[in-house]
Amino acid sequence: MKAVQVVGYHTKLQLEDIPEPKVEGPLDVVVRIGGAGVCRTDIHILEGQWAEKSGVALPYTIGHENAGWVHAVGDAVTNVAVGDKVILHPLITCGLCRACRFGDDVHCENSQFPGIDTNGGYAEYLRTTARSVVRIDDSLEPSDVAALADAGLTAYHAVAKAARATRPGDVCVMIGAGGLGHIGIQVLKAMSAVTLVVVDRNPAAVALAVEIGADHGIVADGTHVQQILELTGGRGAEAVVDFVGEGGATKDGVAMLRRAGNYYVVGYGENIDVPTIDVVSTEINFIGNLVGSYNDLQELMALAAGGKVTLHTTKYPLEQFQQAIDDLDAGRVRGRAILIP
Amino acid sequence: MKAVQVVGYHTKLQLEDIPEPKVEGPLDVVVRIGGAGVCRTDIHILEGQWAEKSGVALPYTIGHENAGWVHAVGDAVTNVAVGDKVILHPLITCGLCRACRFGDDVHCENSQFPGIDTNGGYAEYLRTTARSVVRIDDSLEPSDVAALADAGLTAYHAVAKAARATRPGDVCVMIGAGGLGHIGIQVLKAMSAVTLVVVDRNPAAVALAVEIGADHGIVADGTHVQQILELTGGRGAEAVVDFVGEGGATKDGVAMLRRAGNYYVVGYGENIDVPTIDVVSTEINFIGNLVGSYNDLQELMALAAGGKVTLHTTKYPLEQFQQAIDDLDAGRVRGRAILIP
Amino acid sequence: MKAVQVVGYHTKLQLEDIPEPKVEGPLDVVVRIGGAGVCRTDIHILEGQWAEKSGVALPYTIGHENAGWVHAVGDAVTNVAVGDKVILHPLITCGLCRACRFGDDVHCENSQFPGIDTNGGYAEYLRTTARSVVRIDDSLEPSDVAALADAGLTAYHAVAKAARATRPGDVCVMIGAGGLGHIGIQVLKAMSAVTLVVVDRNPAAVALAVEIGADHGIVADGTHVQQILELTGGRGAEAVVDFVGEGGATKDGVAMLRRAGNYYVVGYGENIDVPTIDVVSTEINFIGNLVGSYNDLQELMALAAGGKVTLHTTKYPLEQFQQAIDDLDAGRVRGRAILIP
Amino acid sequence: MKAVQVVGYHTKLQLEDIPEPKVEGPLDVVVRIGGAGVCRTDIHILEGQWAEKSGVALPYTIGHENAGWVHAVGDAVTNVAVGDKVILHPLITCGLCRACRFGDDVHCENSQFPGIDTNGGYAEYLRTTARSVVRIDDSLEPSDVAALADAGLTAYHAVAKAARATRPGDVCVMIGAGGLGHIGIQVLKAMSAVTLVVVDRNPAAVALAVEIGADHGIVADGTHVQQILELTGGRGAEAVVDFVGEGGATKDGVAMLRRAGNYYVVGYGENIDVPTIDVVSTEINFIGNLVGSYNDLQELMALAAGGKVTLHTTKYPLEQFQQAIDDLDAGRVRGRAILIP
Repeated sequence: MKAVQVVGYHTKLQLEDIPEPKVEGPLDVVVRIGGAGVCRTDIHILEGQWAEKSGVALPYTIGHENAGWVHAVGDAVTNVAVGDKVILHPLITCGLCRACRFGDDVHCENSQFPGIDTNGGYAEYLRTTARSVVRIDDSLEPSDVAALADAGLTAYHAVAKAARATRPGDVCVMIGAGGLGHIGIQVLKAMSAVTLVVVDRNPAAVALAVEIGADHGIVADGTHVQQILELTGGRGAEAVVDFVGEGGATKDGVAMLRRAGNYYVVGYGENIDVPTIDVVSTEINFIGNLVGSYNDLQELMALAAGGKVTLHTTKYPLEQFQQAIDDLDAGRVRGRAILIP
Repeated sequence: MKAVQVVGYHTKLQLEDIPEPKVEGPLDVVVRIGGAGVCRTDIHILEGQWAEKSGVALPYTIGHENAGWVHAVGDAVTNVAVGDKVILHPLITCGLCRACRFGDDVHCENSQFPGIDTNGGYAEYLRTTARSVVRIDDSLEPSDVAALADAGLTAYHAVAKAARATRPGDVCVMIGAGGLGHIGIQVLKAMSAVTLVVVDRNPAAVALAVEIGADHGIVADGTHVQQILELTGGRGAEAVVDFVGEGGATKDGVAMLRRAGNYYVVGYGENIDVPTIDVVSTEINFIGNLVGSYNDLQELMALAAGGKVTLHTTKYPLEQFQQAIDDLDAGRVRGRAILIP
Repeated sequence: MKAVQVVGYHTKLQLEDIPEPKVEGPLDVVVRIGGAGVCRTDIHILEGQWAEKSGVALPYTIGHENAGWVHAVGDAVTNVAVGDKVILHPLITCGLCRACRFGDDVHCENSQFPGIDTNGGYAEYLRTTARSVVRIDDSLEPSDVAALADAGLTAYHAVAKAARATRPGDVCVMIGAGGLGHIGIQVLKAMSAVTLVVVDRNPAAVALAVEIGADHGIVADGTHVQQILELTGGRGAEAVVDFVGEGGATKDGVAMLRRAGNYYVVGYGENIDVPTIDVVSTEINFIGNLVGSYNDLQELMALAAGGKVTLHTTKYPLEQFQQAIDDLDAGRVRGRAILIP
Repeated sequence: MKAVQVVGYHTKLQLEDIPEPKVEGPLDVVVRIGGAGVCRTDIHILEGQWAEKSGVALPYTIGHENAGWVHAVGDAVTNVAVGDKVILHPLITCGLCRACRFGDDVHCENSQFPGIDTNGGYAEYLRTTARSVVRIDDSLEPSDVAALADAGLTAYHAVAKAARATRPGDVCVMIGAGGLGHIGIQVLKAMSAVTLVVVDRNPAAVALAVEIGADHGIVADGTHVQQILELTGGRGAEAVVDFVGEGGATKDGVAMLRRAGNYYVVGYGENIDVPTIDVVSTEINFIGNLVGSYNDLQELMALAAGGKVTLHTTKYPLEQFQQAIDDLDAGRVRGRAILIP
């Protein structure tokens, strides 16, 4: 089959012809890829940023945001059947460790990450397991939802926490109206009556945020902290969801936070650097957020099936992977780039 | 001032001229009534159903769903000022018992209930305390929101619990699309992405429920339990909010409930009568619901200010209280009847 | 191997020689039984009470409270190794349904129940899967903890819920100081500072309850509800854990419950039969409790390893199964009867 | 009456004769002081560290950890009566803001802090309000529990959070076995079955920690992080409660934390300085902790009444305040110093 592979770092991806993956274990599921999201992480992989961390042996197939149709299943698979439309949770998890047994998949002690440390979805077929396939509604197309598998799932996971911890009349600030923020806005508006304020440096992104549901949009122009404080009667917001995590976002974000408020860390880059006296005297919390669980992905797909979360995508045939990556790198992609085998 | 009073049981209410209430304690607040909801409980009071329970001395002023403007405040009142538009939490609470100190106002060990056991709001003025007045948004009118003070607050309280315990993709059934159900539907749709199914015996009520946001409406015609099971793949709903509680509703409701589901008891009349073996083997819960807390009422008012919860009202001058009660008793009121002094 | 089997209803169990179970699937685990609890349910099975419900084909091996040593494992088993000391979660679960993915094993949509609907542990070996084996501390013996696998796990599950919902100074009443109550008392005292009151009809059981940690013991002599109310300043207890569920226990239990209190239903027999008006006006909850999850069993084994939960047992060689059952039926067993192959 | 006052910064406290406080408002409570804790904060006040923050006008009476007997009450006080033994919550709160209405007293928008910004308890009498007095059990003496009012309440608040978020078998590390840690150890052991590991630089403090209940004690000698990792199978602890917050404690503490673990910040001094990528990739949380609520103090007093939390104290007559402060400053006080009028 055709597969786009990492053959070396600091060199381009290559389209190769490799054997189709087969079912080997009883819980294996082979998925015919319908869409694979092209993500900035893919560029970082090529730059070698993940080489040591993942320890993956080259060559391997890249692509960690995948959806498609079930092509073959092992003997013990009971949750999907051949032909089912599915989206793939980004991790392959063991199901046996204590974290898995709590439904806390992302802290599985024995997980694999297709596209990162094993073969991913820039290909015609991908092998995963029954624990990673979520059936999607008939109304959804794999290529339309693939990018929700990782970026969308991360946004959902963090925002759902914020939704559960706030009440009508509370204010939630989202920092960053890019890819994750775009999903986050839709998720929060679908599942909460909290007042949503979106902050971004890009006025166009702020305008779009308001268009898709934010109650207020604020351009991060240096007065944004002050604007949040004015909007909240000087008290600050009950929740800040930070999709940026760099360039001073965390300092600003903490300054926007109300006493006893929760700061959801999603984006990363800089350090959280805050005096313990401030953490104590205002009794604020910092909440880490990794990608969501399998059940989170089911919930996100329920929102997608209900038309409550949509994603603009630009689709490319698999063979045009280089164009997709170049467009992403140059900021020319509207929404998310998706490869279609 | 004018006040409509209970002067005896099994006799009509009387319009009387009584002294205006004055501020007596430092936390007292006298409210000029802008609207007082006429509730079926008022009819039950006249029938003597509450006589023993409340122990109220006659005559007294009836009316327990009240909103208006702050007219006078005691020395220690810091949360409202004269002229503020307010809605009144139905209870006057002590603020000192352990329940109050947890924000669990309705379990206050020393509460009063204006309109039930002390003077209420079918009058020009009512005395309450700072602990019961919730400021409302400039965009709201007291006479439009008064009926949210008790019936609406009860619906909010139960539905908010259900919203917090469910996830997107889950199914919540509401039994009863009358006064409370009408509010409940709006509240759930505003603060949750759960799939909402409304069941009522009245096809017109079901149609209205769907119009204001229910995802599915089912007429309770004897096949409704079966319809819910079909809709949920045979599994039942994760949550049932029962606004009826009589006429077989609880038996039907339990039959609609999924394993590990929550049954929110709001309406009352019949007994919950269920084998302990069923409670244990399906591990279901029954959750009691009384009226909401002060903070719940703030949250409901935030929803109202955002246009997310609205109420149809039919307004009567205070002097026409008898007409309002007759209309309510005869089923001639569309929405809620409100008396305006 | 030797196995004690149900060969017909209303007839005695038979000791048979049947083939040893083998690993067939990659997640299979064959356990050499070190101890199998003899439970009243086993007697009910012989009486045919479970025949229709379980649909099990006869003959089959009985015994649902099992512990021992791992004897053989399938290819995909990563959580235990041959030789490990283990206790068995009573259910074999699929790991793929939404309930399993939340860690809510007992609501698995595809579970098996060894000893009830498939071969159990009155035998030399038993086949289960990796999802059901919990490693136990070196200091514990399988025959000492086997009876914690089902009865103990049920008590733990309910009591841990009560512990999480109460605070120091609150009162928790336990109704029933028999097998489950005995475990429940130890669990609650280990993980909570709540005041524990134990109620039982049997004065000796009450005395033992106090000996092992209950703060107060009350003999259910008709004045027990009144005694609880006096002990709680007339308010009732924040939590009631009912291990009895028959003979009027639920009516008494509800009368002991404080406003906004939680009633944990564990024992069964009679109906909960309570007016909805009472549920609403006091805002109480009824919480169903089935057996605990896999992770609950890990936690209970942590308590056992720490010496915080112990069980008196009377051990019989497997061949003396009939004696053990006769002794249980006659009330001659002190603690729990355990069969040892 | 006699009162010890701050008459200037960088000068000594003075014993003065000032008028007794009187009941002025209906919720006022005048307490005859039975014991007032001498705290390091008192020394910092004299050094002027709080001058700007508190804005208090000099002279005023110092002392913020107080207990005694109710001496006089206002008209509206219903929760205590003259003669009652009480401990004082450190804050005087309004009871009307949204935080107060949630029971979240320490985030009251209108609070006073006796001993810090208004007259405190180094005196014969102190005026507070009904919202700050917690009745204590007959078996407790004011001078024995006074120091639990602030330091103890802070430890309780943080540790109770950790107890609620952990399970038997989990590991909780406490950093710092000084004043707060001493209380924290007793609280955690009373209300949780978690495994407790205490880390301190002082071997004697570690030894005492183990004596009063810690499961493991580790001297912070540079190998302590490694020791925690070994103790937890390389995974780290589910919870770290940091009573130190300076001198590198936070860096060490984060290194001890398991994926998805909670870091409770109580002590302060240095900054939390941690890469967002680490917060995200391990999904850890930082939880701020201020002093506990009124209800927390009731719960701590329930533990004290049950003999589960005790405090070693060294008592001084009020007139020997200077000796007490000198002894504290010189490290000569065993346990807590208490002034007795």
